[in-house]
Amino acid sequence: MNDRKEAEALDRADPLAALRDEFALAPATIYLDGNSLGVPPKAAAARAQTVIGAEWGDGLIRSWNTAGWFALPRRLGNKLGALIGAAEDEVVVTDTISVNLFKALSAALRVQNARDPKRRVIVSERSNFPTDLYIAQGLIEQLDRGYELRLVDDPAELPAAITDDVAVTMITHVNYRTGYMHDMRALTELAHARGALALWDLAHSAGAVGVGLNDANADYAVGCTYKYLNGGPGSPAFIWVPKRHQNAFSQPLSGWWGHKKPFEMSPDYRPDDGIGRFLCGTQPIVSMALVECGLDVFLKTDMQAVRRKSLALTDLFIELVQTRCAGLNLTLVTPREHARRGSHVSFEHPHGYEVMQALIARGVIGDYREPHVLRFGFTPLYVRFVDVWDTVETLRDILVTESWRKPEFAARGAVT
Amino acid sequence: MNDRKEAEALDRADPLAALRDEFALAPATIYLDGNSLGVPPKAAAARAQTVIGAEWGDGLIRSWNTAGWFALPRRLGNKLGALIGAAEDEVVVTDTISVNLFKALSAALRVQNARDPKRRVIVSERSNFPTDLYIAQGLIEQLDRGYELRLVDDPAELPAAITDDVAVTMITHVNYRTGYMHDMRALTELAHARGALALWDLAHSAGAVGVGLNDANADYAVGCTYKYLNGGPGSPAFIWVPKRHQNAFSQPLSGWWGHKKPFEMSPDYRPDDGIGRFLCGTQPIVSMALVECGLDVFLKTDMQAVRRKSLALTDLFIELVQTRCAGLNLTLVTPREHARRGSHVSFEHPHGYEVMQALIARGVIGDYREPHVLRFGFTPLYVRFVDVWDTVETLRDILVTESWRKPEFAARGAVT
Repeated sequence: MNDRKEAEALDRADPLAALRDEFALAPATIYLDGNSLGVPPKAAAARAQTVIGAEWGDGLIRSWNTAGWFALPRRLGNKLGALIGAAEDEVVVTDTISVNLFKALSAALRVQNARDPKRRVIVSERSNFPTDLYIAQGLIEQLDRGYELRLVDDPAELPAAITDDVAVTMITHVNYRTGYMHDMRALTELAHARGALALWDLAHSAGAVGVGLNDANADYAVGCTYKYLNGGPGSPAFIWVPKRHQNAFSQPLSGWWGHKKPFEMSPDYRPDDGIGRFLCGTQPIVSMALVECGLDVFLKTDMQAVRRKSLALTDLFIELVQTRCAGLNLTLVTPREHARRGSHVSFEHPHGYEVMQALIARGVIGDYREPHVLRFGFTPLYVRFVDVWDTVETLRDILVTESWRKPEFAARGAVT
Repeated sequence: MNDRKEAEALDRADPLAALRDEFALAPATIYLDGNSLGVPPKAAAARAQTVIGAEWGDGLIRSWNTAGWFALPRRLGNKLGALIGAAEDEVVVTDTISVNLFKALSAALRVQNARDPKRRVIVSERSNFPTDLYIAQGLIEQLDRGYELRLVDDPAELPAAITDDVAVTMITHVNYRTGYMHDMRALTELAHARGALALWDLAHSAGAVGVGLNDANADYAVGCTYKYLNGGPGSPAFIWVPKRHQNAFSQPLSGWWGHKKPFEMSPDYRPDDGIGRFLCGTQPIVSMALVECGLDVFLKTDMQAVRRKSLALTDLFIELVQTRCAGLNLTLVTPREHARRGSHVSFEHPHGYEVMQALIARGVIGDYREPHVLRFGFTPLYVRFVDVWDTVETLRDILVTESWRKPEFAARGAVT
C-alpha cells in the first residue's frame, strides 16, 4: 500500500466498520492498546447508572434476585463461552485470572495425583505472562510435595518437555509480548498423548482470535474480560471447565458461592454440581455488569469476521512498517504466519520505550513491554485501516526525525 | 418510649442526622438490611460516570497511572484502616473475603509451621459465617497434613478449645446471625497466651462498631466493604496485616500484583515489601472506585459517634419490640449487653421467613436467616429513630393481624 486512500477504501468495504460506533473512543486517538485495556462500549455508562440507581439504589438487597445479580457469573459466562468454543454452562465470569488459574491448576494436580502420583511437573514457557508462573510457583510451594515448574525458552521445545512425568501443561495461547499463537489443538493432543492435562490461558485470545476449546478437547481455560472483550479496567476474569471434568473439579478456594446450597448456611462445604463450584466469593456487581456491554457488541458479528479483519489489520501493519520504516531499526517479533499470530504485533527497537512515549504524545497509544518491545494491539471492533496507515506514518516520522530523543521521552523511572 | 414523637425528638437531637442526606435512599423505604448491602452514597453515580467516561474512556490505559488506579487498593486501604484501628499501610482493599481469608489463613499456618509444627488446629465457631469455615476446610484438604478445624458451639467454649495444639483462631468479631460481638482484645490475648495467632473476620464490624486491631494486638483481619461501608454490591473486600507480620507474610496466591517489580516481567515471583504482597491479580476498578464514596462519608464523623448511635438505635429497637410486641412469639437472640452486641438485632419467630416477607411488602426491608431468624441491621449513617418506631409498629401490626399468613408470604421455594 502506498497511499492512505487505499486504507480508506478498505474501511469503506469493512463489514465491521459500523461497530466502531458502539464504542466511546475520542476521535483524535488511535488506540492500539485494546489488548491491554479495551475501550468503553457506549452502553457502559448507562448500564452503570442503571445498576447503581435502579438496581442498587431502588432494588437494594432484593436485586440479588430481581436484577439477576446472583445469576450474572453464569449468564455472562454463557455469552462469553460462545466466543471461545465452549458449551452452555461451562464458563463463569468471576475473580481474577490469577485466582482462576490457582483453582484450575489445583484441580488439575488433584486429578493427576489420583490417577498417577508420579506426575509432578507443570510445563510452561519462561516467556509466559509472569502471573501465570507466579501462581504455579505459589501453588507448588504450598503443596510442598516435590512439584516442579518446567519452563521452555522456545515453543519448539514443548514436545520434548512434555514427558511422562508431566501432570499439566499451562500455556498461554497467544503470547503477551510477541503475539505468537500456539496450535491449541495439536498441543492439547500432544499433552493427552503423554498423559498430561492441558490448561490454557486465553488472556490475549478471547475476542481476538478464533478459539475452539471443545474442538481442541482442552481440559481447562482461564482468561480475562478487560482486553479484547472491553469489560472495563480490571473487570472480572473467567474460567472454563468442560462438562466432562466438572464434577471431578475440586479446588481449595471453596467459598460459599461454590456451595450447592449457599443459603442453607451449613457449616460443611458441599460443592455445587457443574460450574457453580468454580465460584468462590461475592463478586463486584457493578464491574461485572459492565462486562455484558462488551459481550453484546460481539453478538452483532461473529469471531470468523473478527479474525478476518484482525489478520487484515496486522498484515497491513507489518507490510507498512517493513516498507515505509525500512532501515529504521525495527525488528519484527511477531510471526508472519497467520496460524501462529494473535491480534497484536510487536517490534523491537533499541529505544523502544522512548519511541512509544513519543507515539503516545502524538495520540497513537500502543504499549511498551520489557525489553525493547513496541506492542501494537489490533482490536477489529474499533480499529480502522486508516489507523494502521496513520500509525505507521507517525512512527516513521518519529524514527526519521529521531524526535524520540527529546528529553521528555528519554528518562524513565520506575516502569509502570 | 410510648409515642412516635419521642423518636422524632431523638432524630432532631442526633448529631449524625444530616449524614442521611449523603445516601440515595427512597424516602418510603425503611432499610434495615445495610448489614447485608449498604445503600448507595449519592456520590457513587457521579463517581462511576467519571471512572467510565474521563478515566476509562478518555484516559484509557494511561489511567492506571494518571487516575491512580494502581494505587487504589492501598489508598482505599488507608482510608478504611482508620475505621478499624489499623496503622498506615496495613490494609489493602482487594479480592473477596473468602480469597483474603485463604491468604491470611495460609500465611498464619506457614508461620506456625515454622515455629511449632505440632500446631495443627484452626479454632472457629460452628455458627461462623459459612464461607469462613468452607475456606478453612478447603485449605486443610489442600495441605493434607493433618490440619483440623475445631468448632465450638458457644463462645463460652472458646477458652477450653484454644489448647496448645492450636495454630490460629479464626473468629468473626460480630456473628452474622445473632449479632453477638466477641471481646477481640481478650480473645487475642488468650490465643497469644496459648501460642496461637488470632485472625479476625470484620464483615459485620467494619463501619459498624469500634474496632481496634492494633490495640488488641490482633494478627490478621479480613472484612468486606459492601455492608456498613456502603461500597456497592460485591465491592472488593479488605485484608489487614500489622507491620510486625508483613514481611513474614507468605501465601500461595502469589499473583503479579504482589510482586516487588511487576513490570519487570521476571519469571520468578519475588514478594513486595509490606502490604503489596497481599495483592494478587488486577482488581475491578469501577467497583473499587465506588468504595471510596462510602468511606468518604465516614470522614465526616468518627466511629465513636457511629457506635453511640448504633447502640441507641438497637437499645430502642429491643425495648420497643419487648414492650409493644410482648406475647407475640418473638425471642431476642442478640445480647443485651452493649459490649457483646454488634449493630444488628435478631429475633426468632417460628414463622420468621413469612413475617419478614410481610414486612418487606410493607416497605420495611430486613433480612431473614435460617433458621427462623428475623435480622434487622442498624446503620447509623442513614437509619433514623423514627424508622425504629415505625418498624416495630409495622411488625406488631403484622403479628397481631397475622397478615403474614397470607398465601403470598407463606410458601417459599429455594431460599435465596
